[in-house]
Amino acid sequence: MARRIRGLAAAAADQPLEPWEFERRDLRPDDVAVRIAYCGVCHTDLHAWHGEPSYGNLFPLVPGHEFVGEVAAIGADVRDFTVGDAVAVGNIVDSCGVCDMCVGGHEQFCVEFPTLTYGGVDSRDGSTTYGGYSTEYVVTEKFVYHLPDGLDPAGVAPLMCAGVTVWEPLEQWKIGPGTSVGVVGLGGLGHLAVKFAVALGAEVDLFTTSPGKADAARRLGVRRVVVSTDEDQMAEARGTYDFIIDTVAVAHDLSGYSLALRFGGTLCMVGALDETSINPLTMLGRNLTVAGGGGRPATQRMLEFCGKHGITADVEVLPASAVGDAFDRLARNDVEFRFSLDMTGL
Amino acid sequence: MARRIRGLAAAAADQPLEPWEFERRDLRPDDVAVRIAYCGVCHTDLHAWHGEPSYGNLFPLVPGHEFVGEVAAIGADVRDFTVGDAVAVGNIVDSCGVCDMCVGGHEQFCVEFPTLTYGGVDSRDGSTTYGGYSTEYVVTEKFVYHLPDGLDPAGVAPLMCAGVTVWEPLEQWKIGPGTSVGVVGLGGLGHLAVKFAVALGAEVDLFTTSPGKADAARRLGVRRVVVSTDEDQMAEARGTYDFIIDTVAVAHDLSGYSLALRFGGTLCMVGALDETSINPLTMLGRNLTVAGGGGRPATQRMLEFCGKHGITADVEVLPASAVGDAFDRLARNDVEFRFSLDMTGL
Repeated sequence: MARRIRGLAAAAADQPLEPWEFERRDLRPDDVAVRIAYCGVCHTDLHAWHGEPSYGNLFPLVPGHEFVGEVAAIGADVRDFTVGDAVAVGNIVDSCGVCDMCVGGHEQFCVEFPTLTYGGVDSRDGSTTYGGYSTEYVVTEKFVYHLPDGLDPAGVAPLMCAGVTVWEPLEQWKIGPGTSVGVVGLGGLGHLAVKFAVALGAEVDLFTTSPGKADAARRLGVRRVVVSTDEDQMAEARGTYDFIIDTVAVAHDLSGYSLALRFGGTLCMVGALDETSINPLTMLGRNLTVAGGGGRPATQRMLEFCGKHGITADVEVLPASAVGDAFDRLARNDVEFRFSLDMTGL
Repeated sequence: MARRIRGLAAAAADQPLEPWEFERRDLRPDDVAVRIAYCGVCHTDLHAWHGEPSYGNLFPLVPGHEFVGEVAAIGADVRDFTVGDAVAVGNIVDSCGVCDMCVGGHEQFCVEFPTLTYGGVDSRDGSTTYGGYSTEYVVTEKFVYHLPDGLDPAGVAPLMCAGVTVWEPLEQWKIGPGTSVGVVGLGGLGHLAVKFAVALGAEVDLFTTSPGKADAARRLGVRRVVVSTDEDQMAEARGTYDFIIDTVAVAHDLSGYSLALRFGGTLCMVGALDETSINPLTMLGRNLTVAGGGGRPATQRMLEFCGKHGITADVEVLPASAVGDAFDRLARNDVEFRFSLDMTGL
């Protein structure tokens, strides 16, 4: 019997997200039904809601791909979860499981393309996925994670997309004691990149266009704040960093950050996905890469790390009914640092 | 006593390169004077001759930064060379020697900026360097290399810039048996990238806009030729390569090459230095880097490898007096694969 649930859906691009009743599939043997408590609000949700072409035709759209809750029911073959477990789900809910990427634990790069949490296509029944702005989600247990003990669930939700998106490259590039890290932007992704890199033992500086963020940055453990519009400060920063993670969500010039790298250093973009231009001369001997999401092993390691270090996203919790305000404020960067929507009242 | 020599000089941008008498410095204790036999013609020479701003004000300009010859004289402290030795010099003639990059053998990235072979500034006397389109060059022995036995000197000259520029990244990214390499463009740099990667044991494919180059490519050991303007062929190439080295000398779209990489793969630009645009979505999970030149250890290893495998550049030797023709033909890509100017008649 299909599961009748409620969600917040937009009928078309830029139309209000309004309560909508719809069905989740009956549980397959490997499925877990998650009763959703909190769902983070990601910039991707905003892009999808605007109907940007690279996101496909997603309407009716139920956004949301970073959520926490508890297990409401389990399929016959599920062994790792029981009803009542506190769990989290991120932006991937399935993958082929057999390609080199999946076997290597990089399911975000599944060569068959992973099933995204909303606007994705279920590989078994061909249905479109609806996201976590809803009361319940049904997902194969492979992509469900146990919540670490002792962490605020509302602040864990954004770890599942924003968190792993910055965690994965920090881990891949072996950030730790002795490495010098620059974080560009102090929003949802940026503040988590700072927390992680600081806890990993790196020296962490912040690049920002907003000098007013300096106090918040220092509270998070940032050593030095570089105002990226200040040419003198940018000149002083040249050749300084082993790794720069750029979390800014709109296209911008990369030359200054490339030049701020040491030779052999890497600039990793995780925010902006718009076409941008580069000057190869500024990249001589440096590397540029783009990351987004993370595989199951990295997600698991991130959650363990967060449990050990007491790390969650700094969130402002809003009721599900305030999703319109959340989108408005996110669009103008009026959030410190992430919204987490309370779905229990939906 | 300064050394009176002859060179080919342009008085200003795009002016003919004409015979010019000038002086090289007296030998310092660590200097070697090299009587030049052959000097390769690099695209950089053409850019500099056009007076492109990023090359500074180089006029009068004596181009040339990949040459071979024999030792004509040595300074009092020189121990590694004797008069008559067959030697080669590349695009760097000095570096600070004490920065992390120099200590690590990456003199091309010296933080004080290396002294370039022409249009550079000598760090000891502040003079401007004049290049290898000349009868003799004076250079510290640190940047002089012994010519491998048994190789045609005219074909060794281009190894010193074109060669090391493609060798260094192939070595850094550990290209060898089991790696899949794409080479973009089959010109001076590209044909050497193919020769090196094939001799290193990699599977090597060529991307080209010129289907007519297929036969030449296969003679060099290329497995498959992908015509980059053919959408079907580019679609088929998706997700195939561990490493792509892009030797095309003009700005062009990178998306097709990025998508041709496996996840985790690297696209290395060595040719085009003009501003170009990238689509971050096509680079998700891939890397982009820019290389140029090489340090002393890599140059030494490349020359040993070439000696062992009998590799030189395929060159068309022209007399020094034909430099104008060489530039004209290089500008329209009418060369297979590199010009080497004979300086002995200058």
